[in-house]
Amino acid sequence: MVVGLGPGPAKWLTPEASALLAEATDIVGYGPYVERVPPGPARRHASDNRVEIDRARHALALAAAGARVAVVSGGDPGVFAMAAAVFEAVESDEPAWRDLDITVAPGVTAVLAAAARVGAPLGHDFCVISLSDNLKPWSIIERRLAAAVAGDFVLAFYNPASRARPDPIARAFDLLRRQAGERIVILAKAVGRPDEEVLHTRLSVVRPEDVDMRALVLVGSSQTRLVERPGREPIVYSPRRWEG
Amino acid sequence: MVVGLGPGPAKWLTPEASALLAEATDIVGYGPYVERVPPGPARRHASDNRVEIDRARHALALAAAGARVAVVSGGDPGVFAMAAAVFEAVESDEPAWRDLDITVAPGVTAVLAAAARVGAPLGHDFCVISLSDNLKPWSIIERRLAAAVAGDFVLAFYNPASRARPDPIARAFDLLRRQAGERIVILAKAVGRPDEEVLHTRLSVVRPEDVDMRALVLVGSSQTRLVERPGREPIVYSPRRWEG
Repeated sequence: MVVGLGPGPAKWLTPEASALLAEATDIVGYGPYVERVPPGPARRHASDNRVEIDRARHALALAAAGARVAVVSGGDPGVFAMAAAVFEAVESDEPAWRDLDITVAPGVTAVLAAAARVGAPLGHDFCVISLSDNLKPWSIIERRLAAAVAGDFVLAFYNPASRARPDPIARAFDLLRRQAGERIVILAKAVGRPDEEVLHTRLSVVRPEDVDMRALVLVGSSQTRLVERPGREPIVYSPRRWEG
Repeated sequence: MVVGLGPGPAKWLTPEASALLAEATDIVGYGPYVERVPPGPARRHASDNRVEIDRARHALALAAAGARVAVVSGGDPGVFAMAAAVFEAVESDEPAWRDLDITVAPGVTAVLAAAARVGAPLGHDFCVISLSDNLKPWSIIERRLAAAVAGDFVLAFYNPASRARPDPIARAFDLLRRQAGERIVILAKAVGRPDEEVLHTRLSVVRPEDVDMRALVLVGSSQTRLVERPGREPIVYSPRRWEG
């Protein structure tokens, strides 16, 4: 079972995910996600970040030996998370793993929680891009950013920065400023968690140093609007109708 | 409250959505979604398709008069659903509506359920596009399709066809065949519901007549892979690592 835990709070953990976690004999995942799993008798196998393929192999080996394993990811397991790593291991490792029953339980991914928090910025077509260049060259990220601007998509960035990689978001903002001009930007950090921080800003003034590893970054299309409200946070949304 | 019901089954309705629905005095939405709301004392206001802005105004007027209103959408309310319509009405209609408390409850959107059902096709960067040309000209859809191919994104199409509009998906497949060459295609209909149908196919052979209004269409990137399994449905996934 490859299970999405949602962005953090229990209110976004689906009943399916809860039920699968309760049935598991073994929980496998990155430490902070394993800690989010509600208490229970399952054995817990927490590992460091950046060892996704080892973690996937470990889970598949446990399952092949008869365990009922839940591999856990924050958000949705198919969006820059563990599901792809599990299927990479199924394809390239033990042939017997192809005969395992594997269920993927979808979850609320970070961009949906961030969008809901500020209004409806995804109300029109959008692209979701990981800015991590651990597993792909910067050139493909640059190509995708340019394509997304050419299509006037709303953009959502996962993995915009980390201690090991402070640069990607600065380079992405520079490229977007040159190619897209002014845009509404939302920095949505830890949405739904106690340390939540949401910043409404614009491409011309956003500072890369305000982006950290907790952030989901939304960049509006040319159509995205900000509605001011007296004494309240503004609303950001992308109209359903194209006025270009 | 603007509430996402997920793709259909109760297992994908978040605890937050359940709680908000239980608190509502009034449920407003497209008929089939209102029918999905668990039984309760709330007044139900079901409306036809394609009247989103009237429905949004009705909900806001009820809320301004003191009701606790839940506007319901399938999937996530921010993805081609009611949240944008509600905020359009807030911006353009009664100024007093800007002072309402509006909460958007995210949900599992169709592309996440479809992806989980077949493996991990969204394991790399992806674009989500509505093929409905009710509210935008076909030229912007074409521009976005071309941009998405230029960026070698995985593609997810919402609203690929309806009785009133059989053509968009045929035109999209034609454009993609010319510009992208061969690609893995998944037609995922009614995922998680009793009438679920999933078809694994390819761009060179997919037939537009196999796509209907229940379908979510996934088109792989150049990197997306199909893993055969003896006696089982294949797995489709997009590797995390770029091998281009």
